[in-house]
Formats: sequence, C-alpha cells, structure tokens
Amino acid sequence: MTFRVMGIDPGLTRCGLAVVDIEPNRRSTLVAVGVVGTDAGQGLDQRLLVIAEAVDSWLDLHEPQALAVERVFSGTNISTVMGTAQATGAVIVSAARRGIPVALHTPTEVKAAVTGNGQADKVAVTKMVTKILRLDTPPRPADAADALALAITHAWRRGVGTQAAAATASITGGLVTPAQRLWAEAEARARRR
Amino acid sequence: MTFRVMGIDPGLTRCGLAVVDIEPNRRSTLVAVGVVGTDAGQGLDQRLLVIAEAVDSWLDLHEPQALAVERVFSGTNISTVMGTAQATGAVIVSAARRGIPVALHTPTEVKAAVTGNGQADKVAVTKMVTKILRLDTPPRPADAADALALAITHAWRRGVGTQAAAATASITGGLVTPAQRLWAEAEARARRR
Repeated sequence: MTFRVMGIDPGLTRCGLAVVDIEPNRRSTLVAVGVVGTDAGQGLDQRLLVIAEAVDSWLDLHEPQALAVERVFSGTNISTVMGTAQATGAVIVSAARRGIPVALHTPTEVKAAVTGNGQADKVAVTKMVTKILRLDTPPRPADAADALALAITHAWRRGVGTQAAAATASITGGLVTPAQRLWAEAEARARRR
Repeated sequence: MTFRVMGIDPGLTRCGLAVVDIEPNRRSTLVAVGVVGTDAGQGLDQRLLVIAEAVDSWLDLHEPQALAVERVFSGTNISTVMGTAQATGAVIVSAARRGIPVALHTPTEVKAAVTGNGQADKVAVTKMVTKILRLDTPPRPADAADALALAITHAWRRGVGTQAAAATASITGGLVTPAQRLWAEAEARARRR
C-alpha cells in the first residue's frame, strides 16, 4: 500500500532528486536523495542529456509510481527560468516514456503542504522535511530538501485531493471518512513535531 | 558532401518539423516537412511525450547530421513561453541521445539568414524559403516554414561560421577562399530570386 513518489527540483546547474515512500497514514520514509549537476561550460544539449540520463537511471532503479516536479512560473533571470523549463521538459518526458504519471506543484503549494505556511522560508521547509522523514540531520545536499518536499507534497495532496474526497468535503463541509480523519491527524502530528 | 539538417520550431500546441539537405554550394532541397500538434486538453506529460516521440521517429527516419531549434527568449504569454521551453528541452534530449549536435538560433538570426533582413515578417520568410527550396508553392502547413528556415539558417551559418572561416575573415577582413566566395555568391543569388 506504500506509495512511492520521486520529486525533482529542476535546474540546469543543479537538479535536486528525491524518492520517498509514503504509507496510507502519511508516514513518509526517505528512499534516496541527491543532486545532479551540470557544467555551465558544456553545451545545452549535453547538459540536458546528463540530467535526462540521471533521471532515467533513478526512475529505473527506484520505480516510483509518480513524479512530482516543481512548477516554475517566473524568475528574476529569464535565462535561468528558460533553462529550468527546458530541464523540466526533459525530465517529464523521461517519466512519460515509462508511463509514470507526472504532476507539477508550485513552491507555494509545497511550502503550504509541508509547513502549513505557503510563505515559509527554506529553513522552515528543510526543518519540516527532516521531521517528517524522521532524519537525524537535515537532508544533504541542501538543494535536495526541495525535491523531498515535492515528493511528500504530491503524495499528501493526492491522498486528500482525489475527486471523491473533494466531492465529499464539498458536500459535508469537511473531512468525513475515517481514513481522511486519520490522515488529517497524522498530518497535524507531523506539523507539531 | 550533402549536409542534412532537421529544424524544429518548438511549441506545445504546434511544433513545426523540417528536414533539408544542403549542398556545399548552399543549394538546399526539401526532404520532409510537417507539424506535430497536441491537444491542450491532455496533460503536460502526454503532450511532451507526443512531441518527443514524433521527433524521435523523424530523427530515426531521416538521420539528420544536426538539429536546429528556435531559441525563445520571451513572449507576451509566460505560460506559452514556458510550454515552448519545456518542448525545447524534450526535443533537444531526443537529439542528444542520438549524438546529434544541437544548435539554437534566434528568430532574428533566421530572418536575417534567409531574407537578409532580421526584421522580416512571416510572409517574407515563407517567400524566401519557397525560393531557396525551389518549391512550386509555399510550404504547407504555414507553421512549418519556420522549421525549414531554421534548418537552412543552421547549415548556412555553419558553412561560413566555422572557426577556421571566422579566423581567416578576421585576419584578412573579409571572405577570401574560393569556397567562401562561391557561397556568398550563391547566397546573394538566392536572395535576388
């Protein structure tokens, strides 16, 4: 019943990669975390290939049931944003080729899901990811914390965000099934820790 | 000695694809032209997969020696720009996986290469592409003209843009070899037609 999600914080220079197992009660366990970096001195095609091949090998090794990728809308540096979008396209295709469903989540959605505050800073996100995954020390490298948070966010949002759950919630005005209540309680506990 | 180039005008909704053979004297011949379209109602992962698989099949069928892709910097609709950048990342990886070198050219570079005017409109570009490829009628669909122009631009710029040619030009202050003179004359003739 464990749901395995891979999270990717895309970027041409550094791409955070993470795999997390999430149980129905939302208990989340770190499977793998890392960063793939590319050299700005290489051509764009070689950089994107390095990223795609790293993602290929992670997908084949860990066989996640879903891929969650950070949705980037804008940024101060248009060149960085375009590179991030190109890397996003490359990694999405790697998952789609394997029939693995892909979801995009905004940074605000991720912060809200793991800390309860959509405006949380990186320190707060890293702290909550460390707690949620029951790690002794914050995940290293730091870039990878975002990828872990993405994977957790996707599983948690998917759990309470199904159409059936949404329909029930809109009819009753809240969470009603025992499973939904358990999830909400587990989430509340995780936030308090 | 023919140089085969695939050109791609990337986009999530419509992606122009073209393959052109270019001889050392710049004579250019249409090999294939088309458009791959995706439905906005599909998920991003499925749309990018459709594009990547179309490009895969064109690369395997036509075996181009280079891929030229339009370099997009900005646009009025950020969502469209991001989709275009994601499609760009997907198609670049398809080429890189096959060891096919990829080059990006800006719309201004393409317009300047095929019409002599970096500010040329679409009608002028289509007209020149039709002449350069010795077509009886303008290439259809219209979206594909940009992909053809990209392929032509890449081959032509590559021809006179090699390091050796650039070094010679900078030393002598101009075009000097017989081959370079022939190219320049052929290009001038193509523009006059």
